Amino acid sequence: MNPIAVILSGCGNRDGSELQETLSLLLAIDRHDLKYQCFAPEGSLAVVSYLDNKGETGEERDLMAESARIARGDIKPLSDYRADDYAALALPGGMGAARNLSDYAFVGQNMTVLPEVERAILDTHAASKPVMAMCIAPMVLAKVLGPFGVTLTLGDSCAASKVAELLGANHEVCGPTDVCVDERNKVLTTPAYMVGTRISQIFDGAAHMVDRLVEWL
Amino acid sequence: MNPIAVILSGCGNRDGSELQETLSLLLAIDRHDLKYQCFAPEGSLAVVSYLDNKGETGEERDLMAESARIARGDIKPLSDYRADDYAALALPGGMGAARNLSDYAFVGQNMTVLPEVERAILDTHAASKPVMAMCIAPMVLAKVLGPFGVTLTLGDSCAASKVAELLGANHEVCGPTDVCVDERNKVLTTPAYMVGTRISQIFDGAAHMVDRLVEWL
Repeated sequence: MNPIAVILSGCGNRDGSELQETLSLLLAIDRHDLKYQCFAPEGSLAVVSYLDNKGETGEERDLMAESARIARGDIKPLSDYRADDYAALALPGGMGAARNLSDYAFVGQNMTVLPEVERAILDTHAASKPVMAMCIAPMVLAKVLGPFGVTLTLGDSCAASKVAELLGANHEVCGPTDVCVDERNKVLTTPAYMVGTRISQIFDGAAHMVDRLVEWL
Repeated sequence: MNPIAVILSGCGNRDGSELQETLSLLLAIDRHDLKYQCFAPEGSLAVVSYLDNKGETGEERDLMAESARIARGDIKPLSDYRADDYAALALPGGMGAARNLSDYAFVGQNMTVLPEVERAILDTHAASKPVMAMCIAPMVLAKVLGPFGVTLTLGDSCAASKVAELLGANHEVCGPTDVCVDERNKVLTTPAYMVGTRISQIFDGAAHMVDRLVEWL
């Protein structure tokens, strides 16, 4: 079995990949004796403060180097991703998905997605392989797979779910550990911290999603 | 029940807290419906590269701000820690324990421990409350609780375990998901990435350690 590719977007929920979401996904993959390979786009990210709520600090950091912290150094540039070599593609959440993989956090429904992220999703979808996303990352799928009528969840009906619908997606309300299954597009999404409030919910949601994935592999 | 205090040392295995070890610990605590509170010392850390093996990059970062990435912003300075207010104290591993909480990585058996880390451990031990550590972090306990004849594990018999013995600790060889129990000192340790090779082992080891902790609470 080929490994599952995971696209990271930095290290931490405010300006990168949410750590609980990312590791719950990697753990769930390993529990099924499957392998994973982490990727990140090349480029930079704007650092956000974690000690107060003042937003960006003015510092820039390297997107791959910060993402590599989650991957214990084992990371590849996303431009190397080939759908043929992987069993599925996954995007954990965290504001990095809305700030670094796309610009949803800044422009809302006028959002664009980083070209190599869009290509990875489209190539995987075209190869009829599964695509998974957690938390706010399904918004990236709404933009890229909206034209295919993708069905996904962003948790409750909310501002984000309205935008997803405007982009062509069908939104399904889900609880924190539920999985939204789009059989036709082979897309799995779970709300994680969009509606979750504790770490065990995040790990349960990821486990449920990967349990469902395995049925397709 | 008071929360369990967790001392972080940065964000990432090479220059901070190992992320899998930290989150496996937080998850295990939450699975028992217990609460946790993350702490970090004030000060700075030397950044290590995650994209190659060239070591320190020359950059310095704030220890609390980086640790706060793991805690989703909910972190306190370690100087605020009072043993009376917490049910137990825990130190996940990662090279931050050997670089930022102590200087073991640089000077070996001549190591010293950051004063507020030493105080937190000694106060918790004096209050007959449990202290836990994972991976290389038991080395910090070897230094602080060696004079009390602490028994702990650093995985296999290795260079680190020899140093721990020179510091007065008794070393017990353990597999990746085993827990070393020191009943007299109320100290629990598990080897994690000292001997583990995959994420599920790290989560199993932390779960076993917290299962054992709960018997003392």
